[in-house]
Amino acid sequence: MEKSILITGGVRSGKSELAERLALRATGRAVYIATAEAWDDEMRDRIATHQARRGPEWSNHHVPLHLVEALGRTDGGDPRLVDCLTLWLTNLMLGDHDWRAAGETLADALTRQTAPVVLVTNEVGAGIVPENKLARDFRDAAGWLNRRVAEVSDTVILTVAGCPIKVKPNDNPL
Amino acid sequence: MEKSILITGGVRSGKSELAERLALRATGRAVYIATAEAWDDEMRDRIATHQARRGPEWSNHHVPLHLVEALGRTDGGDPRLVDCLTLWLTNLMLGDHDWRAAGETLADALTRQTAPVVLVTNEVGAGIVPENKLARDFRDAAGWLNRRVAEVSDTVILTVAGCPIKVKPNDNPL
Amino acid sequence: MEKSILITGGVRSGKSELAERLALRATGRAVYIATAEAWDDEMRDRIATHQARRGPEWSNHHVPLHLVEALGRTDGGDPRLVDCLTLWLTNLMLGDHDWRAAGETLADALTRQTAPVVLVTNEVGAGIVPENKLARDFRDAAGWLNRRVAEVSDTVILTVAGCPIKVKPNDNPL
Repeated sequence: MEKSILITGGVRSGKSELAERLALRATGRAVYIATAEAWDDEMRDRIATHQARRGPEWSNHHVPLHLVEALGRTDGGDPRLVDCLTLWLTNLMLGDHDWRAAGETLADALTRQTAPVVLVTNEVGAGIVPENKLARDFRDAAGWLNRRVAEVSDTVILTVAGCPIKVKPNDNPL
Repeated sequence: MEKSILITGGVRSGKSELAERLALRATGRAVYIATAEAWDDEMRDRIATHQARRGPEWSNHHVPLHLVEALGRTDGGDPRLVDCLTLWLTNLMLGDHDWRAAGETLADALTRQTAPVVLVTNEVGAGIVPENKLARDFRDAAGWLNRRVAEVSDTVILTVAGCPIKVKPNDNPL
Repeated sequence: MEKSILITGGVRSGKSELAERLALRATGRAVYIATAEAWDDEMRDRIATHQARRGPEWSNHHVPLHLVEALGRTDGGDPRLVDCLTLWLTNLMLGDHDWRAAGETLADALTRQTAPVVLVTNEVGAGIVPENKLARDFRDAAGWLNRRVAEVSDTVILTVAGCPIKVKPNDNPL
């Protein structure tokens, strides 16, 4: 199995289902690292929907901020699934943390893992420019983080309507 | 010709033109199933632009809600083009219908068609999370519907700047 | 080198970096045609970030509106990089120019260039329908312009998380 796989796509495009399938492919068991904070009912529902899909083959961790430490603690065994980077970034920004330093630390940590990691993220930058400055800053940061993690990933996949498109490695060079 | 083709993409990315070309490819004639309701001048203009492109090789049906029935009535002859699923979903949601049940019925019906069906839909989930709850619910529902229909389609195509990318079947397996 | 390359993608998806690399590939030197107007501090910062990346191998031109004339003036030597069409369209629309006529003139001019041109544009139509009529008109116009320029381009590339996907020519026909 590849060491590091990044899966990106629009909302409800099948990213998490694909990530779960890939994480379980090697050993039939995997570690789930959830970054979502249940800060309102809507998010609580979304988390519950995702959890309901996962059986006893998963060991679950709730990691809103300390992702690199969690990867260190869980390394050496089953594949890890991080779901998702966009919510991790949201938590970093809302808590006024240095998200860029955290992203660099994550990219660096990903190159040193022994067990595989599957990371889920979101495409948020293909709509009209938002009127809200915070939203513009967020999509800039999310674009940067996606590229930084993609750089150190062996495989990058875009999901569209539940279908995966492999964008790295590039079998169709420019 | 494949039995069922789903074409997705951003606004004005060439989905309808490609769908029209594919629908006419087999017999030079096709059935157009329009789901758009002309509820304001802007939508009326958009519908007129689309209609102006279509000649006498098309037989036109206006089907805002009863898509499965329309597919049943028009089966057995020329290919059908459904344009588009996103507006059909909008009509279902605005009319307070059970859109999920309707989507399941559609997916089931698509597996039982004799004549080909080309379906157009939209990518609406690759922007920033909308502040409006209705918009968030809509993009969740649209993502679900796209995946459900893609599951039962033989071919899924993403259009980008008028160029088609075949995303199913996957010639570049993971 | 291909005569005309169009690079599209979401915000911060690596379009400009790829465009710079491709423009320099042939001769190690290139002409930079920037369309951005620095109408506020945020845009000034964004322009500065892009400029900081470019060394003495670039000759820089600031062309908010008269893109076709700039392509004429700079033709016959090193490759040109136009960054970006979406801001050019914004300038045309804000100045109440006939953007459709300008787009047709550009498409026509691109077919007559001697030296290569790399053009950067943006995917803005894969989010939820904006509530603002101006934003809806803009994404329609941007979709049209992207398709028109893609039609006359030899190569069209979509960037996702910094990774390029070649969408034209289509090595995977429908």
